Amino acid sequence: MEFALSQAKKTCPFLHVTSTSSLRRLSTLPAGAKKSNALLNKAQQCPVMSKAMEAQNTTTPAATQQTRTISTSRSSFQKPTASVKAKALENTESVAIPSKTPFAATATATPTLEKPVSLNTNAKHFDYESFYNHELEKKHKDKSYRYFNNINRLAQKFPRAHTSRVQDEVTVWCANDYLGMGRNPVLTETMKRTLDRYGAGAGGTRNIAGNADLHLRLESELADLHHKEGALVFSSCYVANDATLATLASKLPGCVIFSDQLNHASMIQGMRHSGAQKKIFRHNDMTHLEELLQSVDPATPKIIAFESVYSMCGSIGPIHEIVDLAKKYGAITFLDEVHAVGMYGPRGAGVAEHLDFELNAAHPTMGNGSIVDEIDIITGTLGKAYGCVGGYIAGSASFVDMIRSYAPGFIFTTSLPPAVVSGAMESVKYLKVSNTERQMQQINTRVVKSRLAELGIPVVPNPSHIVPVLLGDAASAKLASDELLSEHGIYVQSINYPTVPVGEERLRITPTPGHNQDMIDHLVHSLETIWSRYSFRRVNDWVAEGGRAGVGMAQPPQVEPLWTNGQLGLDNVVQEPKAVKQSSSTVA
Amino acid sequence: MEFALSQAKKTCPFLHVTSTSSLRRLSTLPAGAKKSNALLNKAQQCPVMSKAMEAQNTTTPAATQQTRTISTSRSSFQKPTASVKAKALENTESVAIPSKTPFAATATATPTLEKPVSLNTNAKHFDYESFYNHELEKKHKDKSYRYFNNINRLAQKFPRAHTSRVQDEVTVWCANDYLGMGRNPVLTETMKRTLDRYGAGAGGTRNIAGNADLHLRLESELADLHHKEGALVFSSCYVANDATLATLASKLPGCVIFSDQLNHASMIQGMRHSGAQKKIFRHNDMTHLEELLQSVDPATPKIIAFESVYSMCGSIGPIHEIVDLAKKYGAITFLDEVHAVGMYGPRGAGVAEHLDFELNAAHPTMGNGSIVDEIDIITGTLGKAYGCVGGYIAGSASFVDMIRSYAPGFIFTTSLPPAVVSGAMESVKYLKVSNTERQMQQINTRVVKSRLAELGIPVVPNPSHIVPVLLGDAASAKLASDELLSEHGIYVQSINYPTVPVGEERLRITPTPGHNQDMIDHLVHSLETIWSRYSFRRVNDWVAEGGRAGVGMAQPPQVEPLWTNGQLGLDNVVQEPKAVKQSSSTVA
Repeated sequence: MEFALSQAKKTCPFLHVTSTSSLRRLSTLPAGAKKSNALLNKAQQCPVMSKAMEAQNTTTPAATQQTRTISTSRSSFQKPTASVKAKALENTESVAIPSKTPFAATATATPTLEKPVSLNTNAKHFDYESFYNHELEKKHKDKSYRYFNNINRLAQKFPRAHTSRVQDEVTVWCANDYLGMGRNPVLTETMKRTLDRYGAGAGGTRNIAGNADLHLRLESELADLHHKEGALVFSSCYVANDATLATLASKLPGCVIFSDQLNHASMIQGMRHSGAQKKIFRHNDMTHLEELLQSVDPATPKIIAFESVYSMCGSIGPIHEIVDLAKKYGAITFLDEVHAVGMYGPRGAGVAEHLDFELNAAHPTMGNGSIVDEIDIITGTLGKAYGCVGGYIAGSASFVDMIRSYAPGFIFTTSLPPAVVSGAMESVKYLKVSNTERQMQQINTRVVKSRLAELGIPVVPNPSHIVPVLLGDAASAKLASDELLSEHGIYVQSINYPTVPVGEERLRITPTPGHNQDMIDHLVHSLETIWSRYSFRRVNDWVAEGGRAGVGMAQPPQVEPLWTNGQLGLDNVVQEPKAVKQSSSTVA
Repeated sequence: MEFALSQAKKTCPFLHVTSTSSLRRLSTLPAGAKKSNALLNKAQQCPVMSKAMEAQNTTTPAATQQTRTISTSRSSFQKPTASVKAKALENTESVAIPSKTPFAATATATPTLEKPVSLNTNAKHFDYESFYNHELEKKHKDKSYRYFNNINRLAQKFPRAHTSRVQDEVTVWCANDYLGMGRNPVLTETMKRTLDRYGAGAGGTRNIAGNADLHLRLESELADLHHKEGALVFSSCYVANDATLATLASKLPGCVIFSDQLNHASMIQGMRHSGAQKKIFRHNDMTHLEELLQSVDPATPKIIAFESVYSMCGSIGPIHEIVDLAKKYGAITFLDEVHAVGMYGPRGAGVAEHLDFELNAAHPTMGNGSIVDEIDIITGTLGKAYGCVGGYIAGSASFVDMIRSYAPGFIFTTSLPPAVVSGAMESVKYLKVSNTERQMQQINTRVVKSRLAELGIPVVPNPSHIVPVLLGDAASAKLASDELLSEHGIYVQSINYPTVPVGEERLRITPTPGHNQDMIDHLVHSLETIWSRYSFRRVNDWVAEGGRAGVGMAQPPQVEPLWTNGQLGLDNVVQEPKAVKQSSSTVA
């Protein structure tokens, strides 16, 4: 029983946020107490449990009775909660859930619900708990409710992880520890030494006791990486993007932001928080961007915000073209290199550095004439390819100093722990020199894409390290993900709306240098098995349907990998590249 | 020269964000290049360097010439930057700086500036760099520009730290590692083991590969700590407050937020981002709060947002009274316990737990009738008393699940590293059991407050562990802070506007269990020396001026420490408590 509970806690999103003492209390309160049926009420709101209990209730009243005895609650299945009721009513058109404020619990506020839950005793007051459940129910209904998998990535067995049971191991194929740096002793041993020397936490904001030499040195490394005068580290790149765009665009008088349609949520939040006018251009569409730029006074301050690698489809922003337009129309450029730093360019500075690979390899400094120098603001993360956590901005010294001086999200928060900073710094320094990890990542990516193409398993075409396998609906994507995990020991999270548009649901696979030939074989075979078993659409099916998300289009986009054969040392290799043949423990 | 540059980089906010390669480039570009005078231009914008250079220029042209030769730039002191020029004009009433958009660099945009800087070649475009410098200049002018001290807190010598020179050590008296947990082997050894087992970074968001057993267990610990059904961990409590208030108040239909006037910036941002109506009540003024609550329809959803310990003045929110008002008017309570968790209550759950100390000590579970149970939402940090980093919310399972499902600041960011999570969890567990650290902190706080009172050095009266020493103007506060550091080896950051109101500038001292009797003696003696040397105002002076910030008021507030003598085991102690007599290395 203990074990079953422990397992349930690890997989169920309700149970996992609920402490043991809460569970005990919810299920053992004496009859007559105010929240006596709390645990069963919760169970009835659960899409899994409610169905199980409903079936039980209908077919085996004795068993139901037993359950109720065990829980020692006086819950009654005749009194479903508002949200369960709502779910039951889903298919009856005659009774609609009021779409606005159904929880202002006046006598007439929820007329369509037979017995609305009211956790407060004053009927005039708003019913918060019902409202929360209503909001959750919406997520269940549109299938966007997220179930987190319990994944514990094992440093010594990268890219393997154990699940909620330590003995159950799977291969992780979707993490953003893209290069396996999180388990590199260059990081972990440095971090351990820093823990001994400077302790666990920073102990304050950057202004009050939390500004150490390590922070300054990391920022210096990052400024150098991106050919910028300065850099500034934040808790995360979510915070960096949000705080920087919000501060910058709210300060620049009359600022207008031009934002790529696929920009990340952190940038969208930052723009929204700035209050500045925003104009969205179609993804990577330079004609559209220029039209929008033309519509604004040349003297008005403008920001063009975009990404180098768009993480869900793997497409790459046209950096040269955007810089040219920015100059022409007097805009500054804000480039998010989150999914590129560490992985592109001769020093891992990202796609902008990669575009002048040879030049930057030979003269890796500001002022060498590279396109990197022309970008005003670059943001990046320490939490993906660098294997740690945290985010940053890089730009001119005055710009960085202004954000340092004005952004609340930077000023009023505890700074990153010394050990995190030292680990991240070592990672950045290491990847400034070592190309092995990024080259192996690219080779493995090519192999996976090529193998899937042979089988007609649809991959959204792109020039980067992302392998988006198209399913095309939420149920199929979740089914494929679940079956990979349960039947094949492979973890790939499904990506559904709102992260991708409805109809473009996918599995997002991220090969790393740690995935060996056997792992790739097993992944490809498992996908093939699932595609056959469920007759999921292949490339030809998408062609027949007119194509979607770049797959099976009438005029397929020409996509060349950003890393060329020459850059990967494959110029003299005649055959298709093979995945690196070594055990995962020797790499990265 | 190398050493001087290295030292300058560590103290100068411009230099510290500027990489060596940038400096080299800024100072060695050949004559005729576009940004040839960049470094000297920067120096002219600096309040320290510009004065030095001006003096040099006026009195020793030869020396100036020499400087200019070294920097190999063709900078001319006859062409000050716009901001330097603006500074020079500060005292001449006849020439005003245009207050709006002085950087829209049309031909007539900056008529009052003789030679405005223009870093772009197209005169029709906005001049971003000048704008950044203008914004920085405003900070310099109102004295709110922040110079970060370089403080490296030494785990083995807590609460000592080295400054930019490793051999220069100081005693830290202002960190938020309140209990010295950051150096406790319970944390650091656990973190090292986790680094070996699970690596450095989480590798993804909570939804994609970043949700490990450790995260779930930490959240379970936190839910239990606060007697709540659920808890959710964020990158920081800044993000937790911002994301939770923004999500909650934007979703609750027509929500009105009632916010204490002294609430933290993170809550203010969250409320602002929600777009909900906000009503600010005077700090801890229940009459005012009730007036405001009465003005809103009983059925309207309402949030009362407040703190338990207000960090800059040490005052404590009236939790019982606010809960009563919330129930009366159908509001939910949002309590920030950031500066209380770990330090108050028999298990370190904060002030709410402390208010029913004996009850919670005897029956530390939800449903025991404590006021803790009555609070809807509690937020806390893992980065202060718990010595690590990260923040969290705790509340009902449905509430937590709704935030988990909707808050972008939670969803779209890399989750906390496994080692941070394990360290924080061990810290929470440790402080659930050990009272020693918080008791010693309180005793040392009493000693410091008592010793300063004897000398008439003004401390803002409060019942908590914060010792706010009133200076009353920004220049004095900075002078006292600087002199403590340079002359006495003591680090206490000065707190100026906008963190505190103008006229209430202070030193914020935070005694810890690691400060021993010698350190306290030295602190008190050093403050006395500085107060005498500069004739800073003492309590009597404030009395004569009618009082300020609670110091020297006609009717002084009655303040009893929240930790009673009995709770501290001092009931039988007749004398004034003495600081704990041991070396700092044996504690916490």
